[in-house]
Amino acid sequence: MELKLAKRAQKLKASEIRELLKLTQKKGLISFAGGLPAPELFPIDEMKKVTEEIFTKYGKEVLQYSLTEGNEDLRTIIGETRMKNVKVPKENILITSGSQQGLDFTGKLFIDKGDKIICEKPTYLGALTAFNVYEPEYVEVEMDDYGMIIEDLEEKLKSNPEVKFIYTIPDFQNPTGRTLPVDRRKKMVEIAKKYEVLIIEDNPYGELRYEGERYPSIKSFDDDGYVIYLGTFSKIFCPGLRIGWICASDIIIEKYIMVKQSADLHCNTLAQQELVTFMKMFDIEEHIDQIKEVYRKRRNVMLEALEKYMPKDVKYVKTEGGLFIWLELKETIDTKVIFEEAVKRDVAFVPGHSFYAKDVRKNYMRLNYSSMSEDLIKEGIKRLSEVIMEYY
Amino acid sequence: MELKLAKRAQKLKASEIRELLKLTQKKGLISFAGGLPAPELFPIDEMKKVTEEIFTKYGKEVLQYSLTEGNEDLRTIIGETRMKNVKVPKENILITSGSQQGLDFTGKLFIDKGDKIICEKPTYLGALTAFNVYEPEYVEVEMDDYGMIIEDLEEKLKSNPEVKFIYTIPDFQNPTGRTLPVDRRKKMVEIAKKYEVLIIEDNPYGELRYEGERYPSIKSFDDDGYVIYLGTFSKIFCPGLRIGWICASDIIIEKYIMVKQSADLHCNTLAQQELVTFMKMFDIEEHIDQIKEVYRKRRNVMLEALEKYMPKDVKYVKTEGGLFIWLELKETIDTKVIFEEAVKRDVAFVPGHSFYAKDVRKNYMRLNYSSMSEDLIKEGIKRLSEVIMEYY
Repeated sequence: MELKLAKRAQKLKASEIRELLKLTQKKGLISFAGGLPAPELFPIDEMKKVTEEIFTKYGKEVLQYSLTEGNEDLRTIIGETRMKNVKVPKENILITSGSQQGLDFTGKLFIDKGDKIICEKPTYLGALTAFNVYEPEYVEVEMDDYGMIIEDLEEKLKSNPEVKFIYTIPDFQNPTGRTLPVDRRKKMVEIAKKYEVLIIEDNPYGELRYEGERYPSIKSFDDDGYVIYLGTFSKIFCPGLRIGWICASDIIIEKYIMVKQSADLHCNTLAQQELVTFMKMFDIEEHIDQIKEVYRKRRNVMLEALEKYMPKDVKYVKTEGGLFIWLELKETIDTKVIFEEAVKRDVAFVPGHSFYAKDVRKNYMRLNYSSMSEDLIKEGIKRLSEVIMEYY
Repeated sequence: MELKLAKRAQKLKASEIRELLKLTQKKGLISFAGGLPAPELFPIDEMKKVTEEIFTKYGKEVLQYSLTEGNEDLRTIIGETRMKNVKVPKENILITSGSQQGLDFTGKLFIDKGDKIICEKPTYLGALTAFNVYEPEYVEVEMDDYGMIIEDLEEKLKSNPEVKFIYTIPDFQNPTGRTLPVDRRKKMVEIAKKYEVLIIEDNPYGELRYEGERYPSIKSFDDDGYVIYLGTFSKIFCPGLRIGWICASDIIIEKYIMVKQSADLHCNTLAQQELVTFMKMFDIEEHIDQIKEVYRKRRNVMLEALEKYMPKDVKYVKTEGGLFIWLELKETIDTKVIFEEAVKRDVAFVPGHSFYAKDVRKNYMRLNYSSMSEDLIKEGIKRLSEVIMEYY
């Protein structure tokens, strides 16, 4: 039988990263490859109490079908406390299966085959995976150490008037760890309005700031509904629950809700109640502080080790939050080659290639510091430096 | 700002049913409208024990990211015990967020705009909602009391050689409650092979048989990978967990897994483990027997009340399982008019209109008997009969 797939599905291919990551399943390997939260920080004891409370107090309704929009209490709490400097009514929030689902729905709602969308260069590869299914054309905007270069963004919008949206991760971007300054955020909203283009503000890491003040979201400068905000509990609570959210204007959120209805009816009823009850019984801010404390130290250890062991002309940004450091090696080096050597010495990372929508650059790598202990981080960077040194 | 949606999204509209169902939120209303499992049958006490066991025994991993394919134990159990007369290795099973997600992924994988797909007339409206996003053309196959008429199916395949797949609910179909006999199942697979067309066997109700022997699945007659089977725990356990599955041949399941990866990475890790642990600690067959016992009685009560109160020429099939009875009124009656009158007397159902892909018939209604008590079923059918009587 010949498999007659839809055209969009013919482009589906196994993620190169997934294949690479298989190599990192090796026991004893020091992995800077994933983006996994540290499991030792998951509040298991609290979750045990939370679940007991729920089954005692709520009974049957937590196992029944529920609202497509999501748990009302959860949406209220998100609108009031998790969008930081903006308050949003629950009506503008839809609960999704992680922010990955928010990305997929965004593609579904806005991208026709061949439509242009703008993204950072490089950008989050999970977003590319989600959008690719809808067959867009990517327009990449150059970045400096502070994220998207606004002049290049405007240039690209001028020469591509039909762009559907700008996709950006303004806080501790994946993969680069870069953060967009406040003036650029304001400017981005102005430009979006001028060119009548939506902004997708994907913000999984914003709450993980290890020093300084959190910047206001791009959404907070938007009074005309141009910004669609994607949030998640994966990095500040537990990814296994698969709970994220979309926040958008009335007219747009209504469309997302219809997409959710057709895609999977609603998110796990119990998981949503677990989050609500956790936030009522315990202090999630305190929990996030604990996470930040641990990750801050790990980041410091990684930065110190990079400083100590790496060749002097290896470049990286001293990121103020999030989970990643982005290493730039000299242009002649292909980090896939480095990867193969590194895995032999039991250390792994993600070669930067997969984070480019179009114009692949080969001399970058992404390092994650959230899931390894301080000792392993030190040892891993030392080993990795030894490999890299051989190419310098 | 003008909202520039993708073409597929311009057709999204609020489900008429959802709007109707809002009317049924009235307190004291007897609703035959939903398809809700009876919540009093949810195993709350067992789930409390299950969750305690999990948090004690497994710890952190149940809150972490996990495999896109789904929990290995869960997939093994499903392959060995939940496909009844076929045994399937776990490699051919992908865990989905309910079978609704299986329907969405099927559309995503196979339907290009304008592609023809075959469905029953009438068919499940949630499948239409899922497929509509991908803009297919529907080819409706006529049914008799035993499901799809195979001669009409072959006729339609002959005149539409480019059909992508046949979508069918062979057991206690939604909305009609009809079940496809074994010889038609065999014949359907033969025809699918002959015309090289896939079959999507959607089977949420097959385990809810109240008398007689369960029929072998269509999949059990398939030795060439023509049948894609969609299953779910929503009707035999709890819908709130959002756990379903897709079972397909190696080459096809691989594609579904990639779609899952891009859509939402994986299903709730904890919920999957909850199901596994429930099935290890308790007897799910016994649990299903309890459900069947209650629904069987409710179905009997509804059939008796229909027999007693309805005008003699109102037609329906005495369904042997599932959740629904499909009422055919005389052709001049529009059940939407009946609906408005019925709601005034505090009784609701779903007018049949929404279950037709193309050629809407107006004189049908779907009655659900799983979620109301026996007394309310009796009273509700009595009231509904009084309304209908006025049009006879």
